[in-house]
Amino acid sequence: MSDFVKVRVPGTTANCGPGFDVMGIACSIYNELELKLLEEKKLCIEIYGDGAANIPCDERNMVWRSIEKLLVKGHLEKKYQGAHIKMTNNVPLSRGLGSSATAIVAGLFAANVFLNNRFSIQDIFELATEIEGHPDNVAPALFGGITVSTKTDYKLEYVSFMPNFDLKMVVAIPDFYLPTKKARAALKQEVPLKDAIFNIGHTAMIIAAICQGKIEALKGAFADKLHQPYRADLIPGMYDVFAAANSKGALGTTISGAGPTLIAYTIENGEEIGKAMVEAFAKHNISSKYLVLDIDNKGAMVIE
Amino acid sequence: MSDFVKVRVPGTTANCGPGFDVMGIACSIYNELELKLLEEKKLCIEIYGDGAANIPCDERNMVWRSIEKLLVKGHLEKKYQGAHIKMTNNVPLSRGLGSSATAIVAGLFAANVFLNNRFSIQDIFELATEIEGHPDNVAPALFGGITVSTKTDYKLEYVSFMPNFDLKMVVAIPDFYLPTKKARAALKQEVPLKDAIFNIGHTAMIIAAICQGKIEALKGAFADKLHQPYRADLIPGMYDVFAAANSKGALGTTISGAGPTLIAYTIENGEEIGKAMVEAFAKHNISSKYLVLDIDNKGAMVIE
Repeated sequence: MSDFVKVRVPGTTANCGPGFDVMGIACSIYNELELKLLEEKKLCIEIYGDGAANIPCDERNMVWRSIEKLLVKGHLEKKYQGAHIKMTNNVPLSRGLGSSATAIVAGLFAANVFLNNRFSIQDIFELATEIEGHPDNVAPALFGGITVSTKTDYKLEYVSFMPNFDLKMVVAIPDFYLPTKKARAALKQEVPLKDAIFNIGHTAMIIAAICQGKIEALKGAFADKLHQPYRADLIPGMYDVFAAANSKGALGTTISGAGPTLIAYTIENGEEIGKAMVEAFAKHNISSKYLVLDIDNKGAMVIE
Repeated sequence: MSDFVKVRVPGTTANCGPGFDVMGIACSIYNELELKLLEEKKLCIEIYGDGAANIPCDERNMVWRSIEKLLVKGHLEKKYQGAHIKMTNNVPLSRGLGSSATAIVAGLFAANVFLNNRFSIQDIFELATEIEGHPDNVAPALFGGITVSTKTDYKLEYVSFMPNFDLKMVVAIPDFYLPTKKARAALKQEVPLKDAIFNIGHTAMIIAAICQGKIEALKGAFADKLHQPYRADLIPGMYDVFAAANSKGALGTTISGAGPTLIAYTIENGEEIGKAMVEAFAKHNISSKYLVLDIDNKGAMVIE
């Protein structure tokens, strides 16, 4: 497999409750991509792992579409007209763990390595965000850690950081898809000012508490008023799963991204919390599985 | 002056642009209070310094009213029916630098010291917030530093932190009052979701950038869409003062609290920024003065 670039990119959870479209966390679950750009017009796409049967293996493939945009940006679309793509996925597809951001970042990051880092990491970040539509999954997939990302008047900006304590994420992944589009359609476009202030305060509290290691201030800080209440109907048993996780010692529980995966943040009892979440889902006739994840602090990286 | 307790409490700036009702910073400008609780029903109130002529010296006095609430909370209102209060003020009155929070915190903090710390600092924080109506000035006045404070489902919570770089605040204090009530009345009670997300993202960026020392990420992060645009008409020249400060190297410029003071955040050129702000106000026929302030990291403290 000479000339191939092999990268891995973490799955990610976005929003973290109140930090809607802003916060993200890279998780210790990875998709791998082996990539070779080809001069001839030929696409060879192999996909293994989670959701492989549901991912297109032709020019509609998200990894390839992302690479195409990078090639156009670098005026290289004539030089490289095809690719050999081998993707091995562990991140559950379309469940709120950033699978699409992972594909986009993997394609751009690997292609850039193949092109001898012709583009800056900021270029990759901006293009990935443009393709994805928002930076909250892209930033942690690319940079690792807990990320804050937003578009200021100056630039698409991010900060990545790690807690100085062992924050775990327990994800309960239900056995059904929830398209982001449907989850977005449930939102209100006008919201009460007091709900906006609630989310500003709670997001600020999460970030300050994590950065300063004030763990007890995280209790209650993951609450949200801007999106989760409107999405509750799309995820049967959501509040019961929240309550089950919190009763086992979780600091807080939220929807992961646009759902349907629910995620508890904790420093203890990860397995117990996971089991309680799966049981609570089961009471609503939803089959699910749980994973106890760490924060990935590397982001996208070359592994071979 | 034996038996007197002497404390100092910093002036504070709230909101910091997007962190509406959430963020606050303690500033290196102080009010001092000497206090002696009296068993007899007698009020002796002396006030010196800024705005002294406009502060009531009788039972309507905010320091005394705050002390009264603490005494009632401790069932001590029969034991201590009066007080000797001597207040020396440097924090400009009713200009958006937290003068009322300073008075409340000074009264409660000094009385608690007089009562041999019968109450916890959390008790004082909660009572001061109840009296003031919101915690964003009270938290930094009491704890010092940059603060995030919000009421979660569990408790009134705060985190206080200091940057690892020399962040200065340049305040331009115009020569007119703007009652908080009037500034609040200008707000909309329903806001676009995208404006709420804007403020969440920018607040998160300020906090993460300061905690991680990523100074360049502060550029643009102080922008707000939830309150400043609606208050611009109440502060003639506001946007010109913002532009003047930013053109001299400020990282960002905002209204301080509910105004009318405007505040620039910077790591350089403090004096130049201040002069530019005063000049910009003058073009709108507003007389003002500027101060270059540091972050106070002590909060309320006994000084004698």
